[in-house]
Amino acid sequence: MTRLGEFELIDRYFTRPSRRAALGVGDDCALLRPRPGQLLAVSSDMLIEGRHFVSTVAPQRLGHKVLAVNLSDLAACGAQPLAFTLALALPQAESSFLEAFAAGLFGLADAHDCELVGGDTTRGPLAVCVTVFGEVPDGQALLRSGASPGDAIYVSGSLGDARLALEALRGTLQLERSDLETTRAALETPDPRVALGVALRGVATSAIDLSDGFVGDLGHILRRSAAGATVDVDRLPRSDAMRRQPIAVQRQCTLAGGDDYELVFTAPEAAATAVIDAARRAGTSVSRVGRIEAAPGLRLVDADGTAIADEFRTFDHFLS
Amino acid sequence: MTRLGEFELIDRYFTRPSRRAALGVGDDCALLRPRPGQLLAVSSDMLIEGRHFVSTVAPQRLGHKVLAVNLSDLAACGAQPLAFTLALALPQAESSFLEAFAAGLFGLADAHDCELVGGDTTRGPLAVCVTVFGEVPDGQALLRSGASPGDAIYVSGSLGDARLALEALRGTLQLERSDLETTRAALETPDPRVALGVALRGVATSAIDLSDGFVGDLGHILRRSAAGATVDVDRLPRSDAMRRQPIAVQRQCTLAGGDDYELVFTAPEAAATAVIDAARRAGTSVSRVGRIEAAPGLRLVDADGTAIADEFRTFDHFLS
Repeated sequence: MTRLGEFELIDRYFTRPSRRAALGVGDDCALLRPRPGQLLAVSSDMLIEGRHFVSTVAPQRLGHKVLAVNLSDLAACGAQPLAFTLALALPQAESSFLEAFAAGLFGLADAHDCELVGGDTTRGPLAVCVTVFGEVPDGQALLRSGASPGDAIYVSGSLGDARLALEALRGTLQLERSDLETTRAALETPDPRVALGVALRGVATSAIDLSDGFVGDLGHILRRSAAGATVDVDRLPRSDAMRRQPIAVQRQCTLAGGDDYELVFTAPEAAATAVIDAARRAGTSVSRVGRIEAAPGLRLVDADGTAIADEFRTFDHFLS
Repeated sequence: MTRLGEFELIDRYFTRPSRRAALGVGDDCALLRPRPGQLLAVSSDMLIEGRHFVSTVAPQRLGHKVLAVNLSDLAACGAQPLAFTLALALPQAESSFLEAFAAGLFGLADAHDCELVGGDTTRGPLAVCVTVFGEVPDGQALLRSGASPGDAIYVSGSLGDARLALEALRGTLQLERSDLETTRAALETPDPRVALGVALRGVATSAIDLSDGFVGDLGHILRRSAAGATVDVDRLPRSDAMRRQPIAVQRQCTLAGGDDYELVFTAPEAAATAVIDAARRAGTSVSRVGRIEAAPGLRLVDADGTAIADEFRTFDHFLS
């Protein structure tokens, strides 16, 4: 539990030789040299103790997650990660915390060849803010606004595990030990779907990443695309742990769980094979769950085609 | 005191038509279209209640300051502001706070034609994280590492007023009412030296912005440039309010005050006229305060050339 000064902390844990950046950590600004024909995709997310993670989370997992949620935004745009900045407020500069946090952060950063180029450290209630930069060829970014009636709706991976773990940690439901392990990994170390996002360039007509829950986040696509949709809730992809839960829990967690960091995207019928091919290249499973329609609104149905009441509200940081 | 949801909050206070950005607020990522031949300068700073500002600060001033400290980093690189992201944690979504905060934020943003392109809002202890983007022609960025023996050392504006106000607010010293007003403006609404930074491209050999205090921040230039310096402390620029303080207070505040957001920069003797011309074009006063030397270390002297003991430690968020 060594206490460190600010500059020593940055030097020891957060300074590495710069790779692609024209200038990395250590001056007033980082300098990035954009490539011709590429747009720079930018996203920023802040995680706050007690709001986005519990105080008992392993620092390594926290380091992973704060970058993962940002990379997930790049994935939803089809952007390739380049670099990120980190602003970190800590109650105290503890070596044990920082070492583990940096290991989780750089583990994921290295897996995506994404470079830390700058940031800020300060004392305060534990809060972490990452801003991430990626590149995407001009005209090829995946937006929320491109869905058209007739497009199929797809979801990557499986939904709801993060929420299942959160509820178990809150004590509102019980999980077998092994189910808690796997779902807790989904909550604490999500795997951003970067390769899938890149593979979907030119294939998907719209995309978003799932941070607030399927119903709410698909709603953003529908509003931006001025369209509606029908979704078969029994086709929403679920883990084995999820399938062991009562159906009401499954519905709540898959439709409005939050913290999934999967991609929801749309593609024309004619692109169905291209979608399967993109999923295969990315090594990510993809499930077809519904269809975009001209009639506004989201219609939820079960496998028999029976309407399900939409009582699944999105998560709101200020209203919940 | 209306309570707002997260999306309503973003729509109402933080969404404006995008100007230069290829895509602004409202999708997973913002998209920036870099111009050929320009590097992208990036900096990130987080302000935390109780650490960087007192809870009684006017929200309008807080909105101004969090962008100002980031623009100051761009200024120190000679970069022209383009865009920024904002991550905001708030105990509650109060209209009165948000309206004033946004007014201060956009007032300064508009003055620098710097566009909000994305971000994040969440509930939590009051914390604000801004990441700012600017552009600077490839090869023309001002770095900390370019100072050479013989270069003159300059400072913009005046030093120490922010610290003077902070000490008055803490009750460790007394200020006349009008002096509190002017120094408090320096603390709460600093004016980032963006125009000066741009004007110094091709003129200054190194630059840094003063956030931790003159001695500490000049120290970064000296280390990065592998040089030393002699500074005449009586030439450090001071406001009238500062000149009314005892000399010991003046020394402490100008040498190690912190939160100045002025530029310290170096330029060769031969560029003295160019420096004066850059300052005139930027409408910012500039004072020559010392000289870079080959001998390592910082030597402080007074107007008579008598050595001043360097007891002026930089501010450290973790050690102080």
